[in-house]
Amino acid sequence: MLRVLKFGGTSVGTLQRIQNVANIIKKYKDNEDSIVAVVSAMSGETNKLIEYANFFSSNPEALELDMLLSSGERVTSALLSIALNEQGYKTTSMSGREAGMITDNNHTSARIQNIDTSNIVKALDDSKIIIVAGFQGVSIDTHRVTTLGRGGSDLSAVALAGALKADICEIYTDVDGIYTTDPRIEPKAKKLSQISYDEMLELASSGAKVLQNRSVEMAKKLNVNLVSRSSFTPEVEGTLITKEENIMEKAIVSGIALDRDQIRVGMYGVIDKPGIASSIFTTLADANINVDMIVQTVGLDGKTNLDFTIPTNDLDKTKSVMEQFQEDSYKIDYNESICKVSIVGVGMKSHTGVASKAFSTLAQNNINIRIISTSEIKISMIIEEKYAELAVRSLHDAYELDK
Amino acid sequence: MLRVLKFGGTSVGTLQRIQNVANIIKKYKDNEDSIVAVVSAMSGETNKLIEYANFFSSNPEALELDMLLSSGERVTSALLSIALNEQGYKTTSMSGREAGMITDNNHTSARIQNIDTSNIVKALDDSKIIIVAGFQGVSIDTHRVTTLGRGGSDLSAVALAGALKADICEIYTDVDGIYTTDPRIEPKAKKLSQISYDEMLELASSGAKVLQNRSVEMAKKLNVNLVSRSSFTPEVEGTLITKEENIMEKAIVSGIALDRDQIRVGMYGVIDKPGIASSIFTTLADANINVDMIVQTVGLDGKTNLDFTIPTNDLDKTKSVMEQFQEDSYKIDYNESICKVSIVGVGMKSHTGVASKAFSTLAQNNINIRIISTSEIKISMIIEEKYAELAVRSLHDAYELDK
Repeated sequence: MLRVLKFGGTSVGTLQRIQNVANIIKKYKDNEDSIVAVVSAMSGETNKLIEYANFFSSNPEALELDMLLSSGERVTSALLSIALNEQGYKTTSMSGREAGMITDNNHTSARIQNIDTSNIVKALDDSKIIIVAGFQGVSIDTHRVTTLGRGGSDLSAVALAGALKADICEIYTDVDGIYTTDPRIEPKAKKLSQISYDEMLELASSGAKVLQNRSVEMAKKLNVNLVSRSSFTPEVEGTLITKEENIMEKAIVSGIALDRDQIRVGMYGVIDKPGIASSIFTTLADANINVDMIVQTVGLDGKTNLDFTIPTNDLDKTKSVMEQFQEDSYKIDYNESICKVSIVGVGMKSHTGVASKAFSTLAQNNINIRIISTSEIKISMIIEEKYAELAVRSLHDAYELDK
Repeated sequence: MLRVLKFGGTSVGTLQRIQNVANIIKKYKDNEDSIVAVVSAMSGETNKLIEYANFFSSNPEALELDMLLSSGERVTSALLSIALNEQGYKTTSMSGREAGMITDNNHTSARIQNIDTSNIVKALDDSKIIIVAGFQGVSIDTHRVTTLGRGGSDLSAVALAGALKADICEIYTDVDGIYTTDPRIEPKAKKLSQISYDEMLELASSGAKVLQNRSVEMAKKLNVNLVSRSSFTPEVEGTLITKEENIMEKAIVSGIALDRDQIRVGMYGVIDKPGIASSIFTTLADANINVDMIVQTVGLDGKTNLDFTIPTNDLDKTKSVMEQFQEDSYKIDYNESICKVSIVGVGMKSHTGVASKAFSTLAQNNINIRIISTSEIKISMIIEEKYAELAVRSLHDAYELDK
């Protein structure tokens, strides 16, 4: 069985934890599995290096940042290799370049173009445990080191698993899987044993941040079976993220997600001339502002009200974009005290009444819903932030997710 | 003018000091010079990484150590590049691989085989300042990262200067040049403006540790003009190390060196059969013990006494080698309380009386000389360690080196 294992920054955050990771790998190897491990930088290292760079420049050249930041993963890969080697295992570290991770030239957020697996295949044939420095590659044109941006090590692992046709790709963090909701909010939250790619994508974009969407999307595309689990409790099985067809019992609702990093933008009294909404949202998109939910209503006076949400981080950028649409007759306001609660489940496709149960549950708790949006497998609702925990708990209860 | 500049660990030991190095480079660049800078890891980094490795193994695999240790210089090269870039200079960092530093496969003490200067030449043609990660290369067969061992960054710089036919190779440390003797012992010591390769080699092997012999030897072989100077006082000119023909005024004596890291081994009453000395020294050489001075005397009884010196670090190894030559009739003793004082100068070749002045100076101070060895440009004497400073000061005075 070929396993790709990925260990995040906290999992390799100290020397003792790296030793712990070596023990996890050993167990698999002793069981005759073939292992490709992908590692992040020790937690804190990447931020330290970014601080160093910012000492010299508020806007360091992307190409040099990649040279700088890629060093952290190299260190971890060498240390883990030394740890396993000391215990008699044949190992080899590999930089992104050596692992054949070929990317475009987009420094600091490069995209994987191709993986030349020849080095890895050769090392696997030699029964070596391979420790790949995650997060990095080499640019196809200039042959310089590149990095893959946020969540890059997960991407390295998923892409390698796909290219090698690995049986499984296990993503180790400090969380032991995907839960029906955030256990800090609802202690009765249960760990899911399985979940589909699409549900995971909806949960992640709704605020359950264990896995980055880029990695899940790639896993879906490459048909890689992902497991989310913890290096601190390796005896606990994690959550398998796989294609819907592989999931035996499809839950109607798999989880409730909460996203507090949303701001609602309201625009009132817009004269309803064709193209105004399109013009606003095109301009926002051009400014790389990720507009999430949109509601447009036309009043009896023929004027339009627009409500939409943006990530909290994009507030300043949004305000400066919106200035060009400011006219005397309009009123624009920004509400930061809101949050988004989402209900996710593939079973919704074939079951009715899921949405109405959500609305009635919130109504029973006197929680007003400001915006609603639905997809095939998700219902999202914007509510006042002060009701966030109450909404999550009451919905978790209503769909009996603790059962 | 093409300058290769090398900045050691203390010169880039903090972010502020890296900024300081950027300022040194800027001045040259503003003067239309072409610049290739070679940098070490920030001081302390390499030792930290070695400690990390030793957490897992007392004898980490050399190949993985190279992956680990080579990261420090990459960090410095990226940071220095960012610092210069921020001020409007076109720069590029280069790993050892990118700089074309091709070595043998001898991990952790690789030797440079060849330098492919094509990347550097292209970047110089683009008027870029090039910042090379020192100490590292890539192995000719396996294409894995290698490191060059102690003093490796100096070697990188000298080898690049040779390959590029640079006009000068400046080695920046925290010392502003080569002195007639250690100023901590003799405050009247003077900085030399010039010194020949051979004198520098003799001074270094006699304990003046500013430059490693490997680098000076390579500079001599490649005919590279070396300058030893300080990044902390860049306005002070350093010492030029060059070939003897380039030196205008040849001093009879250039400097007095002191080496405390020596142990005298005495072997008495050795039966004088042919080959016994050769057999002892061959065995020591096979054990990689660097025997320095040797004196053999045959007494009236036909028995031989051997006196020789070894580096302090090799004491245990030497003792275990010598055990096989231990016979009842021999007596072996080890004296750690000795030191080696050396007088170095190319002028000795053409001047007589240099040695006799040394002997009489020490005699006037009641300092016994235990072993003497001479070469064309050096006189070394083993004396009791307690007289070390007195010997250095009185010799410095006798040859009027403060004038």
